[in-house]
Amino acid sequence: MSAPITSADGKGRLRLWLRLLRATRLIEAELRERLKAEFDTTLPRFDVMAALYRAPDGMMMGEISRFLLVSNGNVTGIVDRLVSDGLVARAARDGDRRAFIVRLTEAGAAQFKAMAAAHERWIDALLADVDPDEDAHLAGTLRTFQSKWEGGH
Amino acid sequence: MSAPITSADGKGRLRLWLRLLRATRLIEAELRERLKAEFDTTLPRFDVMAALYRAPDGMMMGEISRFLLVSNGNVTGIVDRLVSDGLVARAARDGDRRAFIVRLTEAGAAQFKAMAAAHERWIDALLADVDPDEDAHLAGTLRTFQSKWEGGH
Repeated sequence: MSAPITSADGKGRLRLWLRLLRATRLIEAELRERLKAEFDTTLPRFDVMAALYRAPDGMMMGEISRFLLVSNGNVTGIVDRLVSDGLVARAARDGDRRAFIVRLTEAGAAQFKAMAAAHERWIDALLADVDPDEDAHLAGTLRTFQSKWEGGH
Repeated sequence: MSAPITSADGKGRLRLWLRLLRATRLIEAELRERLKAEFDTTLPRFDVMAALYRAPDGMMMGEISRFLLVSNGNVTGIVDRLVSDGLVARAARDGDRRAFIVRLTEAGAAQFKAMAAAHERWIDALLADVDPDEDAHLAGTLRTFQSKWEGGH
């Protein structure tokens, strides 16, 4: 039998999680507003373009949704609109008519680069109060946590 | 004119943000699966019930969406379903026929308590590798950050 949960630690971790979630949502809400105002786009659309920008050879639909941790249905709708806007191209994979590879077009890559530059400036300003030491410490904690989850799971 | 962004700090903050976002999404994805499997419910529904549980006198629809940082439209759909499931009650506010106060019913509060207990155990296990010192440190950093954002904004 495993050790009983000590209530103090349990409450501490719950508080930590709620704080993490709140901080993330506040930043996301701010990014959502700015993406809308400056680029007339949405956060999920930005996320899909960011995933594709990292993969110049393209990604399968399922890879995009696994990478972004969202449902396939959501990604499909976003990709459909990006295709009709000329920012993403879809091509059948060699030898498999049912499997599609999705990649940014040149126009898509150019638009993403402009958004990414603004996004990086916004994040830098939003997190300006986190000093570089805190930064490294926080990143270390999250890295430990993340490698456990993305690895053995 | 403000000081130019030093590229190293800018990249560091962007990395920190991407890590924060990734950690949050991994935990949310895990919670989403467990809420579905164990309580046949969704994370947004859990979030709305959690907000209402903190407010025994009820909340206005707009308060719920501001608190959760999501759109009014999303909250409306979730509350409609909670009402038809008998977990939430909606009542006109005194003297204002257009303004509705929403609160958990007794059945809603009982169901939320059961979910919240499981949720707290899950979080405790998911964050088990974060030791209590890291915990306090991380919470402190996020608190500084959050008070800036929720206060002056």
